[in-house]
Amino acid sequence: MRIYDIIAKKRDGQKLTKEEIDFFVQEYTKDNIEDYQASALLMATFINGMDEEETVNLTESMARSGDMLDLSPIDGITADKHSTGGVGDKTSLVVAPICASLGVKMAKMSGRGLGHTGGTIDKLESIEGYNTSIDTDAFFKQVNEIGIALIGQTGNLAPADKKIYALRDVTATVGNISLIASSIMSKKIAAGAKNIVLDVKCGSGAFMKDEESATQLAETMVKIGKKCGRNMAAVITNMDIPLGANVGNALEIKEVVDILNNKGDEQLRELCLVLSATILSISYNWNYKEAYKKAENALVDGSALNKLKELVSAQGGNADMIDNPDLLPECKKSLEILAHENGYIQSIDSKIVGDSAVLLGAGREKKSDTIDYGAGIVLYKKTCDEVKIGDTIAILYAEDDKRLKNAEKLFNTSFKIGKEKPEMKPLIYKTIM
Amino acid sequence: MRIYDIIAKKRDGQKLTKEEIDFFVQEYTKDNIEDYQASALLMATFINGMDEEETVNLTESMARSGDMLDLSPIDGITADKHSTGGVGDKTSLVVAPICASLGVKMAKMSGRGLGHTGGTIDKLESIEGYNTSIDTDAFFKQVNEIGIALIGQTGNLAPADKKIYALRDVTATVGNISLIASSIMSKKIAAGAKNIVLDVKCGSGAFMKDEESATQLAETMVKIGKKCGRNMAAVITNMDIPLGANVGNALEIKEVVDILNNKGDEQLRELCLVLSATILSISYNWNYKEAYKKAENALVDGSALNKLKELVSAQGGNADMIDNPDLLPECKKSLEILAHENGYIQSIDSKIVGDSAVLLGAGREKKSDTIDYGAGIVLYKKTCDEVKIGDTIAILYAEDDKRLKNAEKLFNTSFKIGKEKPEMKPLIYKTIM
Repeated sequence: MRIYDIIAKKRDGQKLTKEEIDFFVQEYTKDNIEDYQASALLMATFINGMDEEETVNLTESMARSGDMLDLSPIDGITADKHSTGGVGDKTSLVVAPICASLGVKMAKMSGRGLGHTGGTIDKLESIEGYNTSIDTDAFFKQVNEIGIALIGQTGNLAPADKKIYALRDVTATVGNISLIASSIMSKKIAAGAKNIVLDVKCGSGAFMKDEESATQLAETMVKIGKKCGRNMAAVITNMDIPLGANVGNALEIKEVVDILNNKGDEQLRELCLVLSATILSISYNWNYKEAYKKAENALVDGSALNKLKELVSAQGGNADMIDNPDLLPECKKSLEILAHENGYIQSIDSKIVGDSAVLLGAGREKKSDTIDYGAGIVLYKKTCDEVKIGDTIAILYAEDDKRLKNAEKLFNTSFKIGKEKPEMKPLIYKTIM
Repeated sequence: MRIYDIIAKKRDGQKLTKEEIDFFVQEYTKDNIEDYQASALLMATFINGMDEEETVNLTESMARSGDMLDLSPIDGITADKHSTGGVGDKTSLVVAPICASLGVKMAKMSGRGLGHTGGTIDKLESIEGYNTSIDTDAFFKQVNEIGIALIGQTGNLAPADKKIYALRDVTATVGNISLIASSIMSKKIAAGAKNIVLDVKCGSGAFMKDEESATQLAETMVKIGKKCGRNMAAVITNMDIPLGANVGNALEIKEVVDILNNKGDEQLRELCLVLSATILSISYNWNYKEAYKKAENALVDGSALNKLKELVSAQGGNADMIDNPDLLPECKKSLEILAHENGYIQSIDSKIVGDSAVLLGAGREKKSDTIDYGAGIVLYKKTCDEVKIGDTIAILYAEDDKRLKNAEKLFNTSFKIGKEKPEMKPLIYKTIM
């Protein structure tokens, strides 16, 4: 088998066999195929597409390129939740405790933030002492004991995807449904959970700009997961505006605690309940309404909040910070963003808000950057809200004035005020099972 | 300007501007663009195509990537002839002397052979003493004095094409009309001649497998040349079978001398006259029939043969070898290929014949290989010829029996004998001016 022939076949719009896809994935991972050949194949794939069978084969091959986690030491039903990347998306930290409090085993590995989107692991590390890198035995033991563990990615999961993604990122071959779906699903398949719920974002801050393409991506991923023997569902959600009010690591933990205390942003609470209900529904084969009611009960009766505290304690974190979020890291400096005209917020560009948070120190531009856990943004007004001159739209937090000034300039381009009240878009478009 | 955006634009089927094409060509030549980005752009270009304006801009940009030869020191009308690569194609060595004997200044640079196609420079070097690397001043002086010089490529002509072609060769992005046309024409434009005639091959031994695609390529190249201010014409010819009877360097010089002595293969003679008449016609604005008659006269009256001898002498070669071709290098060993059945030759695959010649030592598999000038093949039967058991189909020449045995095995797969006489295909399909 020669990579040249595989490139030529996809170039001419032909379907690749399982063996050809395997050859590419495994040999490229072993550095036996040159980057310039891989990028030619990826471009041909981007333009000419892959069908469902090819996409499943690509996913499985990338999943098998490294460690395949075996979750069999865990007693019970395992579930995982994945978001395609959002700004202010702290749902995992609400959803995992809700589901774990209802008996689903949440053995979850999460990533760090890069660019305008944050990472669950960074958020957890803003809690004093929280250890995100416990070993596999301790991880399984904890899940068996308290039903939940949340750690950084361990082992060598889907190294093929990592290498291929890095190449796609610099060769304009990211935005193809088959390539995005196989990239996400290869890591989820390798991570081993039986039940997987995806939160597929669409809008200005996401890969998928509209509901139609997000639905296509979601349907593709659900099909892939089912072909790989998993129970699957996906929720299509709006990422035109940031999720909730807070963006930044400790600020987001505070908002998580608010939600678990039955306070805070209505839309964020609703999305957390929908995602939890979806996980419970596919994991236990429960009726969705019943699942939703149980998830809501776990919020209302405090059992989800208790589960978060158990998680933090089990992984060495200071659970007092959950009881009293004022103990979480805070920045010395802040800057208020005020409205300079009367009207309604027309839109908030979540990518620009995410990039502003990076400028404040809350995220990374490159992997080696360090994070300021207290930095970030609290939004006091969101799309459709009425504002009057002098109203606080947001407060920016950072360690020094220079960062505040830089971020202010960018943040001011993220929103628009206009005379007419715009139409309210739903946060949740649909669920695909 | 960022290469990423240029890749994305072509990926989405958009037209690239002159500035974007220039940025890619010049920065890639300077190693400022990575191979994996260039190959992604080339694959997008292969699949989505380039229009005429983009193709002209690519050609001009590649031509300007290195030296642009200035032929102004030559008095008179300059012309160049280019073949897209054939097996047994020795037409340049007949056409250039014919045209030079009629006053056209043939300041020609040629390439060496690689793979199954031979190179004019290798053929000339089979003549004792012939120097293919004289300096530019001597080159111009010789053209002014005797009207002809034939040397290897000098200077740094179209280095962008060289680099881009090498990448296309390993990424399955060779066979696109715009990319092939701009690759060929960038070197011709940089080489400076005012009048250019192209011999575009089609058939089993050529890039273009059929007359239609060869015509499309020829039309594209003629348009590019005209846009770059050159007089252009192209002849579409059949490369289903090797050109003439002899394949191999000294063997081809012998056949050239035969043609210039009004002997030898009828079809080869005809193609040489057509190419010569086309050059004369566009260079002098002569009526084609008149041009053809003058070319034929130059063959019949021996003036073209004399011009070849002048050329050989001027470049230090032993012109006695032209008067007496038996003095040319010959191999010690030979092997006859005999017919094992009665019938007609159905086809001869010129690529396999070319590859057999390489096995005999007449060509190179890689650039560093040395050549055995005497090695090669003489075909005694060609497509449509009747053969009886025991008839000689060909004789292979090499320095040792091992090479003969290896080549015999391959050569035997190059032809088929059948009961029915196949339809004779024309050698020359059409001329595009």
